[in-house]
Amino acid sequence: MLERRIQHQGLRDRVITAKEAQAWIKNGMTVGVSGFTKSGDAKAVLRALADRVERTGEELKINLYSGASLGETDTILAEHNLIARRLPYQTNAQLRKSINFGDVGYTDQHLSHTAELLRGGSLGEIDLAIIEATAITEDGGIVPTTSVGNSPIFVEKASKVIVEINVNIPEEFVGLHDIYLPNGRPNRTPIPLTNVRDRIGIPYIPCDPQKIVGIVVSHYSDTPSSIVPPDAETERMAGYILDLFEHEVRHGRLPSNLAPLQSGVGSVSNAVLSGLAASRFENLEIYTEVMQDAVFELFDAGKVSFASSSSLTLSDRAVDRIISSISQYRDKIILRPQEISNHPEVVRRLGVIAINTALEFDIYGNVNSTHVRGTHMMNGIGGSGDFARNAGLTIFVTKSSAKDGRISSVVPFASHIDHTEHDVDVIVTERGIADLRGLTPRERAKTIIQNLAHPMYQDELLDYFKRAERRGGHTPHILEEALSWHTRFAETGDMRNWSLVHA
Amino acid sequence: MLERRIQHQGLRDRVITAKEAQAWIKNGMTVGVSGFTKSGDAKAVLRALADRVERTGEELKINLYSGASLGETDTILAEHNLIARRLPYQTNAQLRKSINFGDVGYTDQHLSHTAELLRGGSLGEIDLAIIEATAITEDGGIVPTTSVGNSPIFVEKASKVIVEINVNIPEEFVGLHDIYLPNGRPNRTPIPLTNVRDRIGIPYIPCDPQKIVGIVVSHYSDTPSSIVPPDAETERMAGYILDLFEHEVRHGRLPSNLAPLQSGVGSVSNAVLSGLAASRFENLEIYTEVMQDAVFELFDAGKVSFASSSSLTLSDRAVDRIISSISQYRDKIILRPQEISNHPEVVRRLGVIAINTALEFDIYGNVNSTHVRGTHMMNGIGGSGDFARNAGLTIFVTKSSAKDGRISSVVPFASHIDHTEHDVDVIVTERGIADLRGLTPRERAKTIIQNLAHPMYQDELLDYFKRAERRGGHTPHILEEALSWHTRFAETGDMRNWSLVHA
Repeated sequence: MLERRIQHQGLRDRVITAKEAQAWIKNGMTVGVSGFTKSGDAKAVLRALADRVERTGEELKINLYSGASLGETDTILAEHNLIARRLPYQTNAQLRKSINFGDVGYTDQHLSHTAELLRGGSLGEIDLAIIEATAITEDGGIVPTTSVGNSPIFVEKASKVIVEINVNIPEEFVGLHDIYLPNGRPNRTPIPLTNVRDRIGIPYIPCDPQKIVGIVVSHYSDTPSSIVPPDAETERMAGYILDLFEHEVRHGRLPSNLAPLQSGVGSVSNAVLSGLAASRFENLEIYTEVMQDAVFELFDAGKVSFASSSSLTLSDRAVDRIISSISQYRDKIILRPQEISNHPEVVRRLGVIAINTALEFDIYGNVNSTHVRGTHMMNGIGGSGDFARNAGLTIFVTKSSAKDGRISSVVPFASHIDHTEHDVDVIVTERGIADLRGLTPRERAKTIIQNLAHPMYQDELLDYFKRAERRGGHTPHILEEALSWHTRFAETGDMRNWSLVHA
Repeated sequence: MLERRIQHQGLRDRVITAKEAQAWIKNGMTVGVSGFTKSGDAKAVLRALADRVERTGEELKINLYSGASLGETDTILAEHNLIARRLPYQTNAQLRKSINFGDVGYTDQHLSHTAELLRGGSLGEIDLAIIEATAITEDGGIVPTTSVGNSPIFVEKASKVIVEINVNIPEEFVGLHDIYLPNGRPNRTPIPLTNVRDRIGIPYIPCDPQKIVGIVVSHYSDTPSSIVPPDAETERMAGYILDLFEHEVRHGRLPSNLAPLQSGVGSVSNAVLSGLAASRFENLEIYTEVMQDAVFELFDAGKVSFASSSSLTLSDRAVDRIISSISQYRDKIILRPQEISNHPEVVRRLGVIAINTALEFDIYGNVNSTHVRGTHMMNGIGGSGDFARNAGLTIFVTKSSAKDGRISSVVPFASHIDHTEHDVDVIVTERGIADLRGLTPRERAKTIIQNLAHPMYQDELLDYFKRAERRGGHTPHILEEALSWHTRFAETGDMRNWSLVHA
């Protein structure tokens, strides 16, 4: 079987064990690994590295660059203190702890930027790339598995490459991917993608076979995603968004099959996509970074005609069925490098509808996507900025409160800002929808407080805004109170000012 | 002479006076006018409107959409309370007052976004466009004057158009402009610009002659820009940037003629460009929104081979010479719509080096470009976001303190954020340069405090950061103190905490 998986004859004798392969990793190296939202990540060699360190007790730390979050691997590496620096995204509880403690240096980046920064030379050299693959082509090309992520740029830049052939991935994955990277500057040409279904590259990552120092056979599966099923509130939020779509179509601002949809990972996004299955919209297209279960539900409901992303991130419930029947979907999906799935040029050209999750937002519509209490990293900005800035319609979603009402998602002043008001068209909570397009800051504030805030917090927000407004300014604030909701929460565990709450 | 200026024969009888033309403007209309950083703005008709209102005392307010700031016209309109809503940018003292008072509704936008929002239908209809022109072509096409700005989209969207033929502008301006707008979605194609000198459109704004309801002959000149000449500090800042360029070239991260340069309006940017005149760099290219005096100094010094922008904004000192000798520069400059001069697709493709001015920035490198004391609008975000997010190298500049040291430009927590740390590569003050590429927030903080802050504020910043760091988090803060520098300034007129200042 390995003959079919390793078509380059000269490479067949480079098959080694994961234990042998991990020996290439030295302290202080920068290692670029496949993996995007827990999919297609390199699993075998890094585990073997953790085993070695556990065995020898040696001090070893690497700079780990990936596409986005890894699965179980991130946990293992964090538990073994193997990471000195990490970029551009993660979602791992253990790793998060180390980042917030300051033990792991984390550089949070727009997901479309990392390849460009590597190309530009400002992130140093890639000593080693470890790429999970379905197969190796006759000329050494690497066919990825369930994600593409940053693997093409890692392979291009790395001096050495280790390939993990994952034999759990059916050979039908060959042909699913479309590998295209922008050429160097100057004289870079336009990205020739004008339709979500355009194939603009080749189905494998080109790689000089000389660079491949080892091939490992892997039997690990992706860590499944854990999608929370829609609840009454997320369904209501999905409903508001579907109503907005209807409204935009009625006013001629969107065609009847909408525009290519991007939706971030999360339960609301998932609920919106599920809601589309029961809607009148048809012939929909997806241009996103992650295909989750709901995309396949939409395929099966005949609602979506094509989907493009950088990864397949599936739940326990769906993964086996979809992976094993991938040939059914092969003419309807493309997996691309994240530089292309998230590229400003393409996102703006296509006029993508972007739906992403906010942690909190302020009364003017500035969005915090990343920092709990303004200081502690949750996951990272991911692709939200790539899409929000450039989309045809940018929507952020979140419930109006958290922690049984003790935290308001709508605050006077965001404790951290990832997306400024210039990039936020529409915000949705379970209370309603605020269409902020074209509004001035003062108009935005009134709309946001009225339509989106939880009633427990509405009066205090309005009181803040009205008092701020009397002080004047384009974006009125009372700076000495601006962050007082956050400090109140830090002191009392509750953002509510009980004297102002009408329970 | 008007025969040569109005080549479309059927339009020659539509020449009217400004006083007649202004009668087309009705209360409540949305009017789109030419004008970008005080250049090429419609001057005659709006002045006549102000005269009318002064005469009749009637209540009249319009929504005024422009390219960017107008010259004298903005003052006149603001003084006569003629503006209900304004977008996407302004720099006018009088207007600023009305905006901050809440009398004028101001929507501050990325300069590349306005055309897209109009096309998408979320900014309403354009009732009337008023466009300053050098000439009208045989088929009714409008040749702009010293700027292009948003004029092409205004003409496309407006139901009626008034043209102001400015006879002060030499006919040699015909052929200088390159008008190209992205086509509608879906099926939009790539912007075929791969080099700053590419002409991708036509030299005039296409216009159905039926829409032209009046042609006014204008003799007004552009309001000249007031450039502050370099001082010792701005020259030092320019020096740091030139050293960085040398460093990047030496390390192979930039070619020896650098990358196309963008530089915002302002004295530091101007000083940087002036500094290039004495440098060893040659064959430079400019891809920017505004060509100021310094660009022509660089042409005359033989340093720049080509410059592309959306406007010519010249000082009193240079304007007459350059306008009258424009034919000398005709094969070296192009004026484009601001949607193209600032387009993310093009900026990223070209790998532009972007130099823009910050009002303040925090210890993590988040930049406030717009809001004085966090609340009061200065000018607007302009093109800084278009360039900063997408450039190959993004630099922000500002002096480390203002108001004789009473304000620190480096603060614990920015009182308003226009550019997040993800989009800021390098910051420069007269104290030094901080190269933040690839750094974690904690590393950014140390570098920023050490290299950029004024010594009067350095100890307190470091003290804040160190105490914040002990609380943990990816981006450590002490939220109850985060904005205390701003509130201290509001109370005492000075940000300094004298107990911590080593004078």
